Amino acid sequence: MSHRPGAPRRAGVQRLTYRLSGVDLAAGDAAVRRLAPWARATYRPEVLGDIGGFGGFFRIPPAYRQPVLVAGTDGVGSKLRVAFLAGRHDTVGIDLVAMSVNDVLVHGAEPLVFLDYIGIGRVEPRIVAAVVRGVAAGCRQAGCALIGGETAELPDFYAPGEYDLAGFAVGVVERRRLVTGRRVRPGDALVGLASSGLHSNGYSLARKVVFERLGLTVKDRVPELGTTVGRALLAPTRIYVRPVLALLRAGVPVHAMAHVTGGGLTGNVPRVLPPGCAAVIRRGSWPVPPLFRWLQAAGAIAEREMLRVFNMGVGFVLIVPPRAVPGVRRALARSGIAAWPIGEVRRGRRAVAYR
Amino acid sequence: MSHRPGAPRRAGVQRLTYRLSGVDLAAGDAAVRRLAPWARATYRPEVLGDIGGFGGFFRIPPAYRQPVLVAGTDGVGSKLRVAFLAGRHDTVGIDLVAMSVNDVLVHGAEPLVFLDYIGIGRVEPRIVAAVVRGVAAGCRQAGCALIGGETAELPDFYAPGEYDLAGFAVGVVERRRLVTGRRVRPGDALVGLASSGLHSNGYSLARKVVFERLGLTVKDRVPELGTTVGRALLAPTRIYVRPVLALLRAGVPVHAMAHVTGGGLTGNVPRVLPPGCAAVIRRGSWPVPPLFRWLQAAGAIAEREMLRVFNMGVGFVLIVPPRAVPGVRRALARSGIAAWPIGEVRRGRRAVAYR
Repeated sequence: MSHRPGAPRRAGVQRLTYRLSGVDLAAGDAAVRRLAPWARATYRPEVLGDIGGFGGFFRIPPAYRQPVLVAGTDGVGSKLRVAFLAGRHDTVGIDLVAMSVNDVLVHGAEPLVFLDYIGIGRVEPRIVAAVVRGVAAGCRQAGCALIGGETAELPDFYAPGEYDLAGFAVGVVERRRLVTGRRVRPGDALVGLASSGLHSNGYSLARKVVFERLGLTVKDRVPELGTTVGRALLAPTRIYVRPVLALLRAGVPVHAMAHVTGGGLTGNVPRVLPPGCAAVIRRGSWPVPPLFRWLQAAGAIAEREMLRVFNMGVGFVLIVPPRAVPGVRRALARSGIAAWPIGEVRRGRRAVAYR
Repeated sequence: MSHRPGAPRRAGVQRLTYRLSGVDLAAGDAAVRRLAPWARATYRPEVLGDIGGFGGFFRIPPAYRQPVLVAGTDGVGSKLRVAFLAGRHDTVGIDLVAMSVNDVLVHGAEPLVFLDYIGIGRVEPRIVAAVVRGVAAGCRQAGCALIGGETAELPDFYAPGEYDLAGFAVGVVERRRLVTGRRVRPGDALVGLASSGLHSNGYSLARKVVFERLGLTVKDRVPELGTTVGRALLAPTRIYVRPVLALLRAGVPVHAMAHVTGGGLTGNVPRVLPPGCAAVIRRGSWPVPPLFRWLQAAGAIAEREMLRVFNMGVGFVLIVPPRAVPGVRRALARSGIAAWPIGEVRRGRRAVAYR
């Protein structure tokens, strides 16, 4: 809200303009122009028209007979504060896309389109362009088109250089292939897919441990992690769309999936269990990456709390018949994703028990 | 990020939990439970499943033969600060829905579903419930279903009691009825539809005039406006969906539409003009509501700036052949919306000229 140098002044009453009130329409326009090529690079045949209309247009791919659309929305949360500290804004867009498209994927849907919202204190074209470059990169990984977005300049909401992000994805699935967890039964196996780091959850706690308790900065190298704090904490959330859609298209009978976000395995696996089914997860059945153990030790965090806040190395879960497990692991390994049988479904109330 | 009274402490090292780090999962869950009935009340037959999955499901209504989906996203901007000052959180959700569904409507699309993102410093269930009640009310006005949303608790991003909102709408239109502005030609008439107030744009400037220059508070009564500052500034954005869809369904040949948001008539009308077409808008052809004149006088704001920042009483524009104007006005009057012929399309470059 500061008055800018060179702003017009009149004798006596100062005339107010939108620019003087803290919002610079021209800077916003310049940022939007820089974004268009990144967005266009994500387009797919279902996208109609071009950026700049009031809305983004798309069609359902013609192969679908009884298409069901699946929509999801999410943000990146306080992982953004690590980006602020590191001055690195080109990866959080990948996180933003990942959070929504992995949710849509849980239901077997192919993400078609994505839109982003950026709330920012002052449009700095360099920052906005870096964020949207990340969003476009995430969209390419997910195979979906970035067909719209809004950059809202909100002086007084966000501190200089800071912003919040919200993302929105729409996917499509053939009705009879919709994955809802309805087909889950006792005896089914849980296959955990490796995460790429903390993904986009648990950062309030992680930041408290790293920056307050340990007093580290983003530039500090952590021997246990073999990298800097900034790099370890900013590793982009893995997008599971292509490898998991490949499994579904190959006919693997996936009974349910869970995206491990806020709430960890403890909170997210029960969301897709039908009534009468519980999940038993065997601790030690997958390798917990050093980052989690380092945070746990430094924060003296209880194991139960770790499993409720962090993904602990498992970012996505498939629930399949036991006979499908070896094939699923082989197929995922070919996509470069480690996967482990981490537990099974038993009779019980919709919850996770750890063994 | 403050430690709460009664939080568990251990001798020596304090064990960290997610709650101590500032995020309260249980309060979030409580808020989500309060929202579900409001969301369900907006459902329409195309919605499948129920809230609580990872995504929201919907279908295209079966009457569409070549459906085109239109998606839009927007926020409410710094109008939210007026809500914070007034402690009134049940109308900004209507604004949030209006901003996106009116954008989708511009292309002739019927809004089907809506999702909201709330970024908030601390989940106060009372505030979140009021916001979502407004979102649900807006969805009912627009005839679309609230099928998902995310409430992100972000300590350090937002001040206590403050939040930012982002909304996402998806609509559908029969391909041959898609309105893109392509059919606009010189001689077409611009019909301006009355706004209900400032809608959701220009609040940085309006707040500067009202709270800084005039030194008023939200509770102050303004004789020129016949109401308080808070009520005048918080009047919810008009949702044009039902009356405009009724015109389209009655076969009115609408060549283009514009939603008058940031940039005013000056910035938004050209967005739907085809190359070679300009708009001439006649000042004085519609009644500018007292709120705008009051802000203009108090801020000594140039007319040109007013037209570029505020809607000036026209929240939505239809571009139609001149012969359609009387019927359009009569139909809108029956829906309780005043409308005026405010100008016409001429040959020229895509811009607005005022006469």
